[in-house]
Amino acid sequence: MDEFDFIARCLSPLAAEREGAFGLKDDAATLQVPEGHELIITKDALVEGVHFIGDEPPALIARKALRVNLSDCAAMGAVPHAYMLALMLSENVHIEWLESFVGGLRADQDSYGLSLLGGDTTRTYGSTALSVTLFGFVPKGAALRRSGAVAGDDVYVSGPIGDAALGLSLARHLLTEHTPVTENEYLLGRYQLPTPQLALGQKLRGVATSCIDISDGLVQDLGHICAASEVGATIEWNAIPLSDAVRSAGSPDPETILTGGDDYELLFTLPAEASDKILALKAAFPITRIGKITEDKSVRVVDGRNELRFSRKGYTHF
Amino acid sequence: MDEFDFIARCLSPLAAEREGAFGLKDDAATLQVPEGHELIITKDALVEGVHFIGDEPPALIARKALRVNLSDCAAMGAVPHAYMLALMLSENVHIEWLESFVGGLRADQDSYGLSLLGGDTTRTYGSTALSVTLFGFVPKGAALRRSGAVAGDDVYVSGPIGDAALGLSLARHLLTEHTPVTENEYLLGRYQLPTPQLALGQKLRGVATSCIDISDGLVQDLGHICAASEVGATIEWNAIPLSDAVRSAGSPDPETILTGGDDYELLFTLPAEASDKILALKAAFPITRIGKITEDKSVRVVDGRNELRFSRKGYTHF
Repeated sequence: MDEFDFIARCLSPLAAEREGAFGLKDDAATLQVPEGHELIITKDALVEGVHFIGDEPPALIARKALRVNLSDCAAMGAVPHAYMLALMLSENVHIEWLESFVGGLRADQDSYGLSLLGGDTTRTYGSTALSVTLFGFVPKGAALRRSGAVAGDDVYVSGPIGDAALGLSLARHLLTEHTPVTENEYLLGRYQLPTPQLALGQKLRGVATSCIDISDGLVQDLGHICAASEVGATIEWNAIPLSDAVRSAGSPDPETILTGGDDYELLFTLPAEASDKILALKAAFPITRIGKITEDKSVRVVDGRNELRFSRKGYTHF
Repeated sequence: MDEFDFIARCLSPLAAEREGAFGLKDDAATLQVPEGHELIITKDALVEGVHFIGDEPPALIARKALRVNLSDCAAMGAVPHAYMLALMLSENVHIEWLESFVGGLRADQDSYGLSLLGGDTTRTYGSTALSVTLFGFVPKGAALRRSGAVAGDDVYVSGPIGDAALGLSLARHLLTEHTPVTENEYLLGRYQLPTPQLALGQKLRGVATSCIDISDGLVQDLGHICAASEVGATIEWNAIPLSDAVRSAGSPDPETILTGGDDYELLFTLPAEASDKILALKAAFPITRIGKITEDKSVRVVDGRNELRFSRKGYTHF
């Protein structure tokens, strides 16, 4: 199967539902933005050895590639629409790998109402890498931003933090015997297959003053909100929601949990006075208040009266 | 300089002119499509060892990454607007490399009216790779397609073919002593820094029945037009425009010239009866008629009465 057969046989069916993809048979694609909406574009790459280990089922790699981009889409309050894919395949990628990978794309296309629009397929002499550009729509002017937090706002997260950091340790065989099998599966699943918080992101439009998805670690991503908003924040270690699986893996280490990354939960700020809207959100989503935005521009983590200090804020690539 | 410093110091200035890039400080970007236009999206990846050798000046790699995408934009008849960039950097990429690379992006942004909208920066343990997603606009319904060629149409190219194939041989030190220095520089430049045919592409709207850019080799890309249009084509080897540099490099080999790829010239079809419009095009651009679209669905290259047969049609990645 050569490059063009692969595109025709495996990828074209993923593009069948979108007119503007031209069946992947043209130099480019077209896209129509619905009246009254604006286009949201996000682009996240996944590299073997950095974002995935390489021995995962290829379907999971494909789904994670879509989901980390869907998570950015969620953080903007957008509804996902379509994506482009650049596939850079190492020499040991074979037909079974490709078929599993394409199966993963299909599964998450169906789950999230996505369609393939176009892209590029090439060999690489190094490790496999993929780059997804994802398109979503949001009503004009309603996109959630990182830059609206003000002192006095409450800081919230959409779900448990730190699962993926422990899941990554499991995937690397750095953490093994202590946790029961079902907890291991849960933690590994949270690392390998995050759930983009799209429904919550859409509900936060017009309510949240700022929003980001936690990809590089809670402390670092909160730092991004604070920098963009020109504020600081204080969060309480004891308020951080932790899963039963994290608790049963032993005494949780704040640095691992709060700087580990890959959570793909939303981190957002709500004005304390928006109590009706907050009650409605709380009724529908398991959101947790973890701290407050401050005028003082530093980001602090406190445990009771003690400030916790970490050797790093989160994941950085250089 | 860590990842976030690099983004703030080097990449953010490239995004300063577009409001929707949010200074690269958000999870995603937004983009507005002008009234009466549609959005054209193209995505081409460049991988070290496949699309570039690795010892080129980094500025040239950056510019080529933009230009191969601009060439797709040209083939659709679109006006380029903005781009997203995923940078996957090998461990031996250092600050001087990055600064040169960013200088290359800046140079071609200015030449082509582009702006950076967003993207992703990551390390890789393999070779350096980059993926560009480029956005352009075209009046609604006016995008050039591969699928409109009809039997009897004339086949044209926008400029000399085969320069880049010889340029690649030079870059790989496979071709050295025979050609004079200035011709070498010309051929190498045509491989390393193609010129997207944007002005011609825009003029072809409403005139050309089909269009593609030649990236994988003329014979293969003509095959894509024929497949999409359900026709065939016959082209004349003697009609193929060749540069003086190709001629002075020795007796040109049809297979190298016509299947070598990386030309980034436009290949398009014009109805023979559109003679006024063709004369106007010919007055403004050095276009050359190289053959005819046929009802018979094969793609043939003839040299007088003889049909030339090649061992391959063009570049394929698998």
